[in-house]
Amino acid sequence: MTGFSEHTSAEVVAESFAGTPDPRLRRILTSLVEHLHGFVRDVEPTQAEWQQAIDFLTATGHTCDDTRQEFVLLSDVLGVSMLVDAINNRTSPAATDTTVLGPFHLVDSPPRELGANISLDGNGEPCVFAGQVRSADGAPLPGARVDVWQANGAGYYDVQQPGLQPERNLRGLFVTDEHGRFWLRTVVPRYYPIPDDGPVGRLLTATNRHPNRPAHIHVIAEADGHAPLTTHVFVEGSPYLDSDTVFGVKESLIRPVTDVDDPVRAEHYGVANPFRLIEFDVVLDRVRP
Amino acid sequence: MTGFSEHTSAEVVAESFAGTPDPRLRRILTSLVEHLHGFVRDVEPTQAEWQQAIDFLTATGHTCDDTRQEFVLLSDVLGVSMLVDAINNRTSPAATDTTVLGPFHLVDSPPRELGANISLDGNGEPCVFAGQVRSADGAPLPGARVDVWQANGAGYYDVQQPGLQPERNLRGLFVTDEHGRFWLRTVVPRYYPIPDDGPVGRLLTATNRHPNRPAHIHVIAEADGHAPLTTHVFVEGSPYLDSDTVFGVKESLIRPVTDVDDPVRAEHYGVANPFRLIEFDVVLDRVRP
Repeated sequence: MTGFSEHTSAEVVAESFAGTPDPRLRRILTSLVEHLHGFVRDVEPTQAEWQQAIDFLTATGHTCDDTRQEFVLLSDVLGVSMLVDAINNRTSPAATDTTVLGPFHLVDSPPRELGANISLDGNGEPCVFAGQVRSADGAPLPGARVDVWQANGAGYYDVQQPGLQPERNLRGLFVTDEHGRFWLRTVVPRYYPIPDDGPVGRLLTATNRHPNRPAHIHVIAEADGHAPLTTHVFVEGSPYLDSDTVFGVKESLIRPVTDVDDPVRAEHYGVANPFRLIEFDVVLDRVRP
Repeated sequence: MTGFSEHTSAEVVAESFAGTPDPRLRRILTSLVEHLHGFVRDVEPTQAEWQQAIDFLTATGHTCDDTRQEFVLLSDVLGVSMLVDAINNRTSPAATDTTVLGPFHLVDSPPRELGANISLDGNGEPCVFAGQVRSADGAPLPGARVDVWQANGAGYYDVQQPGLQPERNLRGLFVTDEHGRFWLRTVVPRYYPIPDDGPVGRLLTATNRHPNRPAHIHVIAEADGHAPLTTHVFVEGSPYLDSDTVFGVKESLIRPVTDVDDPVRAEHYGVANPFRLIEFDVVLDRVRP
């Protein structure tokens, strides 16, 4: 007999997974059963409520296709993507904070020269994006790879507007100079909503939550001997900084767009003086050899 | 600022649902976030493992269509369907134990006379199924509705074999006589596997679990002034009684198939003597007026 009851259910079901050959899978399923049954015992859903949950998950699955991942959105708006990010990126206090990769990264970001203008559509307020990549001990990291991507001044990524935006708009893979510095020309990104015409959007509506992410530039920084780091720079003053729908904001990652009047720096960056600037240094943890 | 960290994540995300107008939805989401984040903190999934979870849920959604509900199967094999059943059917000690409805019930079960033979295909070992419906105080319940459905001797329901089995095979809606008794002719059902060619089947395979349910007859009993009751009778001696893949078995619901040599009863049931018999009485709780 199984001895199944509302009090023993988690134990009985966990026991059914005792013969799982892979110990990691066994561990995950045992924990899943414990927490899932704990949730059900806590809220005591009616049969109709449980059916609603089944219907929600089914609709979420049916919304997924080659270009839309509704379960990732669900994970995002429930803060699970950020929690998994936090667990997998326990950086040293000196290192830059991490945040989620998001769905708009392209594996083959286009290599560009320092100073290049990645705004191919000119949609948005021009600005310079510049910084230095350093090791946690303060040493500059020449030859570091800095992968940058962002939405335009209307809040759209190139892949969301094929045909409307040039291919590879607002993307670039840069290599830092002998002082570990990078700089490029771009536009100030705008906040934008995650796709909200599916089940996750309906969940946000039903809970009086908005679907927006505050304005940000994505950065992946990599250097030999160091742990790669995935993060964003958030634009100070953007709407939704205090209520990012995917919980991606960390205070340490917010930077102002400053007005700079400095002919020497303007010439260095290849722009007319005065100009606007977002500065963001990235500090990487050394990996043990 | 949200103050999101791996330690505060559940609190921060729960707070984002604080403005949910429906208090029940707010309560459910708050609890979901707490238990879901507890699970993630407990197992500390890698990014790749979390992606596997997303892929599994997506495949489960894509397996659902008009005739297949893979999320219900997932709920079943994780014991959640039975837990929800237990929570929603806290019957008195005198009442018959409940178990899950399952996916094969038809709302419009065909009305049949007492003693009718519901085995229209003759596939299986003939037997009589009989019992009495009583109130928790012992009083027989004349005019109670007893809805019965089951798999045939090969382990298939009619709806799984359209064209192969007669329509409404092994289904019947009976009304108890003046003593609260019902009886009908049928066949001994066989154990059967739940659909195991999808993601849930792969989960069972990966965890060395079989997909089978032990042999059973479904019963819904209803009587005026009483709470309706959904349950199974399990066939004593069936394989998988101790490992029902959906955790539906309760010891109180197992009955033997007995050999009966009694010409008077045989005549009453309309069968040749000797005959085989499964007896199952159903006790219903009175509802407060």
